[in-house]
Amino acid sequence: MKQQHIELNLGSTTTTKQTSMLGLYAMNGGEGHLSYAQNSSYQRGVLDVAKPLLEEEIAAKLDHFNPNFRIADFGCSTGHNSFPAIEIITEAIEKKFETLRPEFQVFFNDQVMNDFNTLFHSLPQRKRNLYAAGVAGPFHGRLFPKASLDFAYSSCALNWLSQVPEAVADHTSPAWNKGRVHYTGAKHQVFEAYSNHYANDINSFLQARAEELVTGGLMALLVPADPAPRCSHGSATSFTTPTEIDLLGSCLVDMANKGIVSEERVDSFNFPLYFTIPEELKGIIERNMSFKIERMEIVNNIWGKGRLCSAKARAAYLRAVFEGMLINQFGREVMDQLFDRYTNKLAASPHFLDPHNEKSIIIFLLLKRN
Amino acid sequence: MKQQHIELNLGSTTTTKQTSMLGLYAMNGGEGHLSYAQNSSYQRGVLDVAKPLLEEEIAAKLDHFNPNFRIADFGCSTGHNSFPAIEIITEAIEKKFETLRPEFQVFFNDQVMNDFNTLFHSLPQRKRNLYAAGVAGPFHGRLFPKASLDFAYSSCALNWLSQVPEAVADHTSPAWNKGRVHYTGAKHQVFEAYSNHYANDINSFLQARAEELVTGGLMALLVPADPAPRCSHGSATSFTTPTEIDLLGSCLVDMANKGIVSEERVDSFNFPLYFTIPEELKGIIERNMSFKIERMEIVNNIWGKGRLCSAKARAAYLRAVFEGMLINQFGREVMDQLFDRYTNKLAASPHFLDPHNEKSIIIFLLLKRN
Repeated sequence: MKQQHIELNLGSTTTTKQTSMLGLYAMNGGEGHLSYAQNSSYQRGVLDVAKPLLEEEIAAKLDHFNPNFRIADFGCSTGHNSFPAIEIITEAIEKKFETLRPEFQVFFNDQVMNDFNTLFHSLPQRKRNLYAAGVAGPFHGRLFPKASLDFAYSSCALNWLSQVPEAVADHTSPAWNKGRVHYTGAKHQVFEAYSNHYANDINSFLQARAEELVTGGLMALLVPADPAPRCSHGSATSFTTPTEIDLLGSCLVDMANKGIVSEERVDSFNFPLYFTIPEELKGIIERNMSFKIERMEIVNNIWGKGRLCSAKARAAYLRAVFEGMLINQFGREVMDQLFDRYTNKLAASPHFLDPHNEKSIIIFLLLKRN
Repeated sequence: MKQQHIELNLGSTTTTKQTSMLGLYAMNGGEGHLSYAQNSSYQRGVLDVAKPLLEEEIAAKLDHFNPNFRIADFGCSTGHNSFPAIEIITEAIEKKFETLRPEFQVFFNDQVMNDFNTLFHSLPQRKRNLYAAGVAGPFHGRLFPKASLDFAYSSCALNWLSQVPEAVADHTSPAWNKGRVHYTGAKHQVFEAYSNHYANDINSFLQARAEELVTGGLMALLVPADPAPRCSHGSATSFTTPTEIDLLGSCLVDMANKGIVSEERVDSFNFPLYFTIPEELKGIIERNMSFKIERMEIVNNIWGKGRLCSAKARAAYLRAVFEGMLINQFGREVMDQLFDRYTNKLAASPHFLDPHNEKSIIIFLLLKRN
């Protein structure tokens, strides 16, 4: 029997362990001031705008019924944004099949490193007909038996790669991403390594869900994306506006220059994140051929709605999301300094705090299993 | 949405919270030296002797097949004894339905306070055809949709009551259990309060499982019990040998006498544990009428096999099991002292360390859903 002895990631007591290489990273757990639970209003905003779309699509496109209706949320974190999403989905299904009174079994999935204890403690008072379960493991592979799910959902999770593309951390590769932590502003080989990895990951995700979903089963996805490529093979038409992730990277480079963290550790660190563009994602789904695209729509830019408008709130948000993997690479002791530097840089850059400069979008997708 | 904000029970970092009143208690989490994972060789021994029975009964009595075969373990703790049990069960099912190649979905259930993070981290390398999920909540009520389980299992868990019978902690009740922490050696009203509560709890457990299991589904139970009533309404035929739980209670009384813990807290504390006898359990199952008893057998006394023969090992075992609820009542700061006293009393009592004086048994039951 495998005994991993991985230490737990519980909010402010997060402990160090080399796990990002295994694709085992997770949002900050617990419910403290550094937790994802307390710093995910952005993702909650995404759900608010997606609600009418979910309701509309379930009413119009759901033609499969199961008296024991099984729903899975892929990338649920500690559940604070997952629970209201599941509520929207189950209510829409109940409305659609009013007389049939289904029971629901809802599976909350996230990485093994995710804080499931907080998820289970936070579960809303159980509805009479809803039964919850947690499923730990990477959603790029199989997590459920064949044809055992009736509905799949994933919000703000498919921008995470299964791991950092190996080439970008390999100093012998032409895609080595020296002095940077992401692909924006990097050489085109770096972008391509990310882009290829993303296509493979999404294809694996679709393949796994195609096996798990019943024929006719629906999948609703909310995918963080960019409206146009951030890097397009050196073309002048690409937008290469620096992102907040680059800003965080520049803080790490500053700290390496001052000898606070090792330069080699910065060079070998990259964020396993990729923001697709609508046409690219559409192409991956079409080539996979397991799902029909029932609806694809760009959802309103939420940042423009005044959420996370202070530098401090934005820093807290990024910290809740990224701290786990940053600790793995650089150690807990430099985290306060890193995010203080980041907050200061952000506050000094009106560009980042102006919502009009926020280019990220959310793609809403409703897919039906062929 | 309910936000419980219950603190987590993670091995040596267990935190205080009044939860035993909610029926939310759990074995010590984590994998440290005080954890249940490191101190449950007794329960592992139970599985060793039950293995041939499980294999035999599945081969002989399982006549229900599902290509997606769903199994639940009720009371799995952090999984260290649950994983090998599930391996035995799935292998027996595969052997029985050799050509049909089922996929398995295995649900690990325990209280909300259970350390599911450790459970998920400890999951064995996934077998190609086995998918795991965690389900948090008390097994005396419904946890799964109707007819959604094919096989149920529970080992060393049904001796736990859903809560302490209210009357025994109520100083106005004739069943008030002043100066004691359990029913052994107590007045008959205390025993009756426990016994009635147990009958109701087991009936609720059977009722919930009857709704969740498919017709013809099997349920294998390993129930810690006594061979004869410890207290039988004052009759001289009962055996009222003091138990190790009484010994722990006497340490608490000593500490109250010395003013280390409050007398009132000792008087209002009782262990939510009950050890049935075979005839009593048989009667409850027969009156419930949902299940046919396919096999009922007393399993060998494991203590006699030389496990946990030192006072220190026995104290560590009891601490892993009971510490959570003792901390809730008496505070973390007195735990070392309590278990030091207990170890000393145990070491000074050759009675307890002689395996021939250990009266507890395990009842193996194979039930089939009518």
